Amino acid sequence: MEQLVKEEWEKFSGLLSKLSGYTEAIGLLHWDLRTGAPRKGVETRSNTIGLISGEIFRLQTSTEMGEFTQFFSRPEVMNQLSDVQNKIVKDCRKEYERSQSIPAKSYEEYSVLTAHAQTIWEEAKESGDFNSFAPYLSKIVAFTQEFIDHWGVKDSRYDTLLDMYEPDLTVEKLDDIFGRLRSRLVPLVEAISASPNKPDKEFLAQVFPKEQQEKFGLFILGQMGFDFEAGRLDESVHPFATGLNPGDVRITTNYLPDNVTSAVFSSLHEGGHALYEQNISKELVGTPLAQGASMGIHESQSRLWENMIGRSRAFWHRYYGDLQQHFPEQLAGVEVEDFYRAINSVANSFIRIEADELTYNLHIIIRYEIEKLIFNEGLEVNDLPGVWNAKYQEYLGITPPSNALGVLQDVHWSGGDFGYFASYSLGNMYAAQILNTLRQELPEFEDLIAAGNLLPIKDWLTEKIYRYGQSLTPSQIIEQVTGEPLNPDYLADYLEAKYTELYQL
Amino acid sequence: MEQLVKEEWEKFSGLLSKLSGYTEAIGLLHWDLRTGAPRKGVETRSNTIGLISGEIFRLQTSTEMGEFTQFFSRPEVMNQLSDVQNKIVKDCRKEYERSQSIPAKSYEEYSVLTAHAQTIWEEAKESGDFNSFAPYLSKIVAFTQEFIDHWGVKDSRYDTLLDMYEPDLTVEKLDDIFGRLRSRLVPLVEAISASPNKPDKEFLAQVFPKEQQEKFGLFILGQMGFDFEAGRLDESVHPFATGLNPGDVRITTNYLPDNVTSAVFSSLHEGGHALYEQNISKELVGTPLAQGASMGIHESQSRLWENMIGRSRAFWHRYYGDLQQHFPEQLAGVEVEDFYRAINSVANSFIRIEADELTYNLHIIIRYEIEKLIFNEGLEVNDLPGVWNAKYQEYLGITPPSNALGVLQDVHWSGGDFGYFASYSLGNMYAAQILNTLRQELPEFEDLIAAGNLLPIKDWLTEKIYRYGQSLTPSQIIEQVTGEPLNPDYLADYLEAKYTELYQL
Repeated sequence: MEQLVKEEWEKFSGLLSKLSGYTEAIGLLHWDLRTGAPRKGVETRSNTIGLISGEIFRLQTSTEMGEFTQFFSRPEVMNQLSDVQNKIVKDCRKEYERSQSIPAKSYEEYSVLTAHAQTIWEEAKESGDFNSFAPYLSKIVAFTQEFIDHWGVKDSRYDTLLDMYEPDLTVEKLDDIFGRLRSRLVPLVEAISASPNKPDKEFLAQVFPKEQQEKFGLFILGQMGFDFEAGRLDESVHPFATGLNPGDVRITTNYLPDNVTSAVFSSLHEGGHALYEQNISKELVGTPLAQGASMGIHESQSRLWENMIGRSRAFWHRYYGDLQQHFPEQLAGVEVEDFYRAINSVANSFIRIEADELTYNLHIIIRYEIEKLIFNEGLEVNDLPGVWNAKYQEYLGITPPSNALGVLQDVHWSGGDFGYFASYSLGNMYAAQILNTLRQELPEFEDLIAAGNLLPIKDWLTEKIYRYGQSLTPSQIIEQVTGEPLNPDYLADYLEAKYTELYQL
Repeated sequence: MEQLVKEEWEKFSGLLSKLSGYTEAIGLLHWDLRTGAPRKGVETRSNTIGLISGEIFRLQTSTEMGEFTQFFSRPEVMNQLSDVQNKIVKDCRKEYERSQSIPAKSYEEYSVLTAHAQTIWEEAKESGDFNSFAPYLSKIVAFTQEFIDHWGVKDSRYDTLLDMYEPDLTVEKLDDIFGRLRSRLVPLVEAISASPNKPDKEFLAQVFPKEQQEKFGLFILGQMGFDFEAGRLDESVHPFATGLNPGDVRITTNYLPDNVTSAVFSSLHEGGHALYEQNISKELVGTPLAQGASMGIHESQSRLWENMIGRSRAFWHRYYGDLQQHFPEQLAGVEVEDFYRAINSVANSFIRIEADELTYNLHIIIRYEIEKLIFNEGLEVNDLPGVWNAKYQEYLGITPPSNALGVLQDVHWSGGDFGYFASYSLGNMYAAQILNTLRQELPEFEDLIAAGNLLPIKDWLTEKIYRYGQSLTPSQIIEQVTGEPLNPDYLADYLEAKYTELYQL
């Protein structure tokens, strides 16, 4: 590397490390708000978060960021950089150009609008009154359309939005992928609905003391290889995971006294996110690559641990005895197979976040199709409830009795997060495809689970995925690990096999 | 106010609010490190703290800060500002000039040196080997002497250091104040040593379960009027209080299983700091005045609650029954008067932080006199152990058997915090003087305590002290509240009356 390039890189690293520091601070300020900050400090805290977020935005769009990324993008300079360095430059440049292109005034108005809209949405959801929220949503859509023009229309307008969360996936690819998935899942769901072999879930409706739930959750996290010297578990209303840095990854759960499975599976879910963040290579610390490759890849790791491992027969044949020991009265006389069937019961329901492993994907496909209609076909906001309800009837055979149980259920649109939903289902598909390779390369996979020896699985995932952080793109990861691009058949195969057996179809 | 002044003030407020935001972030980053941040994240966290501290320093010494404070210091502009605004300008200007005057290179070297010296000090304290620490301490003293030259020598070199923590107090005043205090406390301590009426403390040496200690601590904080919607109580190795903003004031304590009084009095102490911070006027939020008036005034509030209220007879005649209910086995058969005498026992001991309410002041006077010798008389670092031990013999009648129990006991000097110690004893003196007025203006003071009605006391302190934050100077506060400048006789009177009765002198 030439001396000049070396010196410039050192200066650039200073800027990156500043960005990392502010990002860690923001992470902690948010974590604290959600885990126990006193109510009366919230207003001042919000200003502090706004201040530091503003500072991050300022650095990302600063003249120096523009100049550095331009300099390091010259072919004769790129030649001298490592792959990781080039990826850093590419990601920073993308962020720079995206943020730069929006007029400051529009962005400011948009920020105020979305902050306000979230409160309006909360009230609308409470009352089920879509009309009170619609004007705000229309404005958010209008701003987003304006931003798409600034960012530049890709293959289609909605492609520009998808690109923010899952850089390699386009409407063309997703239409094919979701189409294939939907065509296999809808009949499967119908067959399950028609099956007389419904699991008994009644025994789950009991009181499960919080202290015991917490003990069991901590035990399972330990089994997964969660490093408690590099992370912690707390409580919050909505479970989440946040990686301040690979040595400080925090997850939360919410203990419901009348629901033992909620906290168990949220711990497995957030624990999966956490294993990813804890095992990112230390070399990436202080750079923007010290995070997951994409929303979808991140979600694949939470889903793999929550569903493919955590809701597997092998897992509960190993751990059900431990669960029983934590709740001897509640689970006396409940056989492991009954438990396994109960936690895998499928139901056509209205609310995405309460959906089972199978129908969840249909909830996502509905949102994907609707967002595409909004941005590519000009679907009017006022027509959303009708379209929403029709699709629920078509794919799940049910029509929401109210907008609160329908189009108003998710917070995302009130914050302008269009293009995000797809990641959830992509996570499931990535996970199933990775699982397929994992089973080939670690043929003793199920025996390991059945023996409670989960660490080799964590190590394999670290080796193949975690350590790279964001230094590879989602498609590079999935192709490097599995040898082919994203293929929805792995998820369909997995779900068909699992549920055909479970429901004796 | 002229339009120009108004506009400039708005811009200046933006800068102040940025400083407040970063200060809140730093406060949370530190709090989190000390209350449960995972071990493996500490290194990255330290970088983040360094980054944001650096940003605060940069803003405090920025060209804009220089220009704003110069502009607002013009007599024709000052005329247009409120008292609070003028105080903000004055404090910012002082900080600006102080920080500006030190060459960046010296400050950097000094920061590295003190960070390193604290580790060396920890090891030296462990082994009792003063010689291994002495070279570092010599360098720190040399740097401090250099800084004094940059800052400008006041009446004496040590005055320049005192001015950082207690702006209105000089060596001339403190020599008089501490001299008078010492002359009255030394004979009192001697009389107590000679008294045959020693309290029985044996019953305190029992196991007191942590859960019960925590419950009692929370109860007492509630009684004091600690607002749990604007604060929280956590655990840490060393108790502390930190006000992120008046709506978010956090305190910690440390529960020792074999010592029930430690956590009780640390909760009262930190609770006193917290009441101050929680009741600072909301109008000061976002300015540098949203904090205590000085270290000494802050300490007066913790000492007033810990000692003058919390170790009073009236307090325990009201709350001892509650304590007994929390520890029925441990305190069965222990009378309230025995308890009162036990928690007020006086002992000539080596360690400042374990000292009782009376001898504590002598520990501070010793440090004050030694620091003055270092900076005003050129006392050599190598001579410190000898001087230290001689003074302990002279004032407390004991000679430390090792440097670990002597000159090496406190962390302050390893961090360069010369001039700070005085604040602790000033806190006691301010507290006794304020207590004297409080008793006159609230003649039912003791009845209120005896009835467990502490809120009128908190309200009086809020009205007189808390709400002003740093908008008044320590001397303005003490004169406004008590009608006279700091007068050590109030503390001496208070201690003489209390201990003459207690030890039947």
